Amino acid sequence: MDPGSHTPTVTDATREVDARPYPYRFAPASTALVIIDMQRDFLEPGGFGESLGNDVSLLTRVVAPVRTLLHAARRTGMTVVHTREGHRPDLGDLPASKRLRGNPTLRIGDEGPRGRVLVRGEEGHDLVDALAPIPGEPVLDKPGKGAFYATDFELLLRTAGITHLLVCGVTTEVCVHTTVREANDRGFECLVVEDGCGSYVPEFHETALRMIAAQNGIFGWTATSAELLPAIDPGALPQDAAATASAPSAARPEPVTTEV
Amino acid sequence: MDPGSHTPTVTDATREVDARPYPYRFAPASTALVIIDMQRDFLEPGGFGESLGNDVSLLTRVVAPVRTLLHAARRTGMTVVHTREGHRPDLGDLPASKRLRGNPTLRIGDEGPRGRVLVRGEEGHDLVDALAPIPGEPVLDKPGKGAFYATDFELLLRTAGITHLLVCGVTTEVCVHTTVREANDRGFECLVVEDGCGSYVPEFHETALRMIAAQNGIFGWTATSAELLPAIDPGALPQDAAATASAPSAARPEPVTTEV
Repeated sequence: MDPGSHTPTVTDATREVDARPYPYRFAPASTALVIIDMQRDFLEPGGFGESLGNDVSLLTRVVAPVRTLLHAARRTGMTVVHTREGHRPDLGDLPASKRLRGNPTLRIGDEGPRGRVLVRGEEGHDLVDALAPIPGEPVLDKPGKGAFYATDFELLLRTAGITHLLVCGVTTEVCVHTTVREANDRGFECLVVEDGCGSYVPEFHETALRMIAAQNGIFGWTATSAELLPAIDPGALPQDAAATASAPSAARPEPVTTEV
Repeated sequence: MDPGSHTPTVTDATREVDARPYPYRFAPASTALVIIDMQRDFLEPGGFGESLGNDVSLLTRVVAPVRTLLHAARRTGMTVVHTREGHRPDLGDLPASKRLRGNPTLRIGDEGPRGRVLVRGEEGHDLVDALAPIPGEPVLDKPGKGAFYATDFELLLRTAGITHLLVCGVTTEVCVHTTVREANDRGFECLVVEDGCGSYVPEFHETALRMIAAQNGIFGWTATSAELLPAIDPGALPQDAAATASAPSAARPEPVTTEV
């Protein structure tokens, strides 16, 4: 699967999702599944996120629904993009404001529990095993909350003919929201997956989702993974969504192979 | 006052504001007051915003505190930037997604109650009289929610040596939030003025402000106009803030002159 071109299996036929605030339509051939910052340091016990006092179980439960959608996208040949927030080892792309804000005891670039915090190449910075990318799926390293700032994200999407984004990841109100706002200003039609996103602050998660769909979809649409799954893969069984939704979310992954 | 260079009166001395989540420090010489989209069509009765069913009084009450800060910035020679959301008359900068979203009866570019909706040069698109810019204050026309996308905003700020932004305007969770997120990724230190912003959805206003200051200031700081005023102009009287806060917010402006 080459996300830079459409495989013969991916369809241009329009699919419809029962979404908020009204049905969302997309053609798989011009749509990308975008998975935001599902990194060990944010999701796993013992990482940077937990060291700040956060309850990471609020994020790990997102893994199963995202994995269901990821596998469906792989089966059907849909474009997939993974993002990671982090910085160059020399921190040349780290604004002083970001390093110093809040005067934390553990700063970006410092040695943390899983390697240097938010530094590319470190164990904690990488994606969780359950959502590891496969060859052909671009991994986008971004220095900010938004995936468009100081990256080649827009170039990748335009080159692949992508006009619609299905957005998952963490956290809902920070990196997911910032990326969707950037995408919306650029004319992309975005659907945010409600149970495919998570936040350390449940109230912010809920309100952020409603902000997306407010004012008749000012930033886009929202839907659950169960609502979205059959639109990505009409051959998926309803229990595919239900089964993964109740599976242990931090389980070790099954071997990941291209299933197209 | 030329916002591209610092006047002799503006100071490099650090000022401190009692802000959320902790005190915010700035030097007036490297700080801009940014006033987002205080346009007739969003704020005034009979405009585009009201035609969508919104209660514009939720926004007009923002005018008085913003005007107090604007006049203080003018008195002390601080850089001021105004933004307006809108499009070229030929709509060449309007993504189809933005024109069609929600299938509204009145679309961007259509003839509305105050001229063509969100089109530059039309009466409804312009800033409210009470906050009209004066010569030397740049007005930034933006096609999106974020002030950095497809504009020269960052160039203006960098050229003027600006590192800190004091952000007011409407609406809190849409254009203010998107602009602050973009600014934060670019390394600007932002303070959002709590009563200097407003939303058609009070719950979104409140939550959006808390999202700014959460996680030890993940996007920046918030403070009231009364807390900020003496940091901009130590000569301002406490009643300056109190008086304007209780004044009719949509009152006709006094003649605006450069007061430096």
